[in-house]
Amino acid sequence: MSLSAQLREATAPAWDAAVGHRFVDELWAGSLPREVLTRYLVQDHQFVDGFVALMGAAVAGADHAAPRVRLARQLGLVAGPENDFFTRSFDTLDVPGTDRAAPTLFPPTVGFRDLMNEASAAQYPDALAVLLVAEWLYLDWATRPGTDVPADPIRAEWIALHSGAEFEAWVDFLRDEFDRVGETLTPRRRDEVGALFVRAVDLELTFFDAAYA
Amino acid sequence: MSLSAQLREATAPAWDAAVGHRFVDELWAGSLPREVLTRYLVQDHQFVDGFVALMGAAVAGADHAAPRVRLARQLGLVAGPENDFFTRSFDTLDVPGTDRAAPTLFPPTVGFRDLMNEASAAQYPDALAVLLVAEWLYLDWATRPGTDVPADPIRAEWIALHSGAEFEAWVDFLRDEFDRVGETLTPRRRDEVGALFVRAVDLELTFFDAAYA
Repeated sequence: MSLSAQLREATAPAWDAAVGHRFVDELWAGSLPREVLTRYLVQDHQFVDGFVALMGAAVAGADHAAPRVRLARQLGLVAGPENDFFTRSFDTLDVPGTDRAAPTLFPPTVGFRDLMNEASAAQYPDALAVLLVAEWLYLDWATRPGTDVPADPIRAEWIALHSGAEFEAWVDFLRDEFDRVGETLTPRRRDEVGALFVRAVDLELTFFDAAYA
Repeated sequence: MSLSAQLREATAPAWDAAVGHRFVDELWAGSLPREVLTRYLVQDHQFVDGFVALMGAAVAGADHAAPRVRLARQLGLVAGPENDFFTRSFDTLDVPGTDRAAPTLFPPTVGFRDLMNEASAAQYPDALAVLLVAEWLYLDWATRPGTDVPADPIRAEWIALHSGAEFEAWVDFLRDEFDRVGETLTPRRRDEVGALFVRAVDLELTFFDAAYA
């Protein structure tokens, strides 16, 4: 079994709890309270910069030219057309300046920032592990075939940003790449990289919880 | 005087010799021999991957979110729309497969790869120093107001890739950013970063020379 499949299986309880979280159900159903959505986005916004840095580290660390270019193109998208989602959403949601720039961080937000910094400073497989969870788990909850997207533009865009053919291809790439480099790791390094994967899944779950706290 | 202005002044002999190189004159005049252009592009192509990695390292290493996003957007351009220039040019110039994938490297090509690897593995100011020279010196030779661009599409595109308002704004950003972080460096670190700048300028000059060897 591939490393990604093993880790997906090993993390199934937390993964499935995140993908089936009340937050996700309410987001899709259009019943997600505005204050919960706001709290969630304010916290999520706090690791956008760390996510961009992590993608940069993956670009720098990739062991071949082809995946490096693929990662760099996706980074250009994240830093380009997708980069003003938070500003627009915060305007619509009347989020005050302090909550945009320096809100009080919830524990899972701090956890994610630490995890991203740690993975950025480590090696390419470590960076891939954290990127893969962040993107794959989000694709998973943002894809509900046959379900109408919510009418509210912010909620609909947040789903659209994590679904669709291009985003699926990006996640497929990350998974293939993670499995490719996973083959080259020693058992000890596989454990280290796997531990980052597990931490990331656990944080995704507690991050959804925190929006209701 | 800003760090970039000091280093530009200190490297004036090599810088001006590169910008006024026979290669540049012949490129603009439309008289650059096809074999010289081919030799030059084959060698240049060999550090595209190192350049993308270096930009990734700068994205990962930037000390603020705003410059990180700016670098990431430019990286998206380099890895995206601009990325097929070499393939198209090599098709037109009938460059054989071995020269595309693994040509014999000229000494300045090896020097550039080493320099980029070294700067990628160092800190943000080091990465900026090498990026700044590569982009600023190229803007300098690729900008000749009032001169017609050569008719040949490859030669014209190589100039266009390193000139124009957007490329000028990119170089302005790099220079401002380099000077901003330069202010924060200890004298010893300024010397180290300056030494990378000087090495990069010298390599640009010998790189042009090598195309005629």
